[in-house]
Amino acid sequence: MTTGRFITFEGGEGAGKSTQIAMLADALSLRGVPHVVTREPGGTPGAEALRNLLLNDAFDWSARTEALLFAAARADHVANLIRPALADGQWVLCDRFVDSSRAYQGGAGALGDEQVMTLHRIGSEGLLPDRTLLLELDADEAARRAIVRDGGGGDRIGARDAAYHARVGQRFRQMADAEPDRFVSVDAGGSADEVHARIIAALEPVLP
Amino acid sequence: MTTGRFITFEGGEGAGKSTQIAMLADALSLRGVPHVVTREPGGTPGAEALRNLLLNDAFDWSARTEALLFAAARADHVANLIRPALADGQWVLCDRFVDSSRAYQGGAGALGDEQVMTLHRIGSEGLLPDRTLLLELDADEAARRAIVRDGGGGDRIGARDAAYHARVGQRFRQMADAEPDRFVSVDAGGSADEVHARIIAALEPVLP
Repeated sequence: MTTGRFITFEGGEGAGKSTQIAMLADALSLRGVPHVVTREPGGTPGAEALRNLLLNDAFDWSARTEALLFAAARADHVANLIRPALADGQWVLCDRFVDSSRAYQGGAGALGDEQVMTLHRIGSEGLLPDRTLLLELDADEAARRAIVRDGGGGDRIGARDAAYHARVGQRFRQMADAEPDRFVSVDAGGSADEVHARIIAALEPVLP
Repeated sequence: MTTGRFITFEGGEGAGKSTQIAMLADALSLRGVPHVVTREPGGTPGAEALRNLLLNDAFDWSARTEALLFAAARADHVANLIRPALADGQWVLCDRFVDSSRAYQGGAGALGDEQVMTLHRIGSEGLLPDRTLLLELDADEAARRAIVRDGGGGDRIGARDAAYHARVGQRFRQMADAEPDRFVSVDAGGSADEVHARIIAALEPVLP
């Protein structure tokens, strides 16, 4: 049996996470590595139901409530999909995980990193990824891609202002610097193939 | 302006909380005390949406996820209904509050009191009621009333077994013993009028 690996993709809007996850999944298929692709918030029926509430404009959740809801969705996702898949020897490729909560609710929001991590310990026994790929794009390029993709609107979190997203990017960078063994910073500029090659190079040490 | 008071009603299934809240609301109206009647989980549009998810059999939430969801619903309820009403000088009569989470998820569940209170601090800045009326009924009478009311089925929490509900009752009793200034134990046996008279007597010191 292969060893399950938990790989998360982080970064701001427009960094190309979805494209790169699909390309990595294809590469794993070619190497015969069993894997599952998932995302946060969501990934299980319960967490997807919470995702619908979280991203719905009708509920103007406070930062505190939002953090609890993300932690609840993650707890369901970890218990019912991520841990079982890893125990089964699969790789789990996840679009966003606790580091997004740390950057969005903890760093750029009002809550603070310690409280976000406390929620993660209570909800998910503090599970951390084996590798976190941080896709970094300079702010101008990120803004340009976001406008091309959704006309600059986005959902209720994506639509927050540029200063907010700059703080998010800064927080991701600080986390990557603080945990160099887990985080891999990937230059998200250039073509999708170029970025994919960087990701494969970064994961080569753990690829079977 | 009157001073807002936050009064919660706790106790197992069938203790008569709903009836007693309605009777206290009528008594406050007669005395000209502005008040709002609410319940948990629920009380605000966001929290009611979470209530629907929490009590839905389709999602078999773990104890950890359930605790986070109750804390999230409570955070929304506190921020958008309870604190504004109290600031406005109203009495808030609430059917269940954090002590139910402590008894159900923390005591009888797997989580522990400290973690439930940590979630309450993060979500609701630890807001506690001015008075908590614990309606206590012996186990046989509680079971009889529950069967009369809903045929013994109940929702996914109400339907748990007798040993679970006995542990819940024990936890409520321990909490009441530990915080005698906040908790008032009320004998819930006898007629609704008799129980109401006991509640009025218990609240007399704070009634205007």
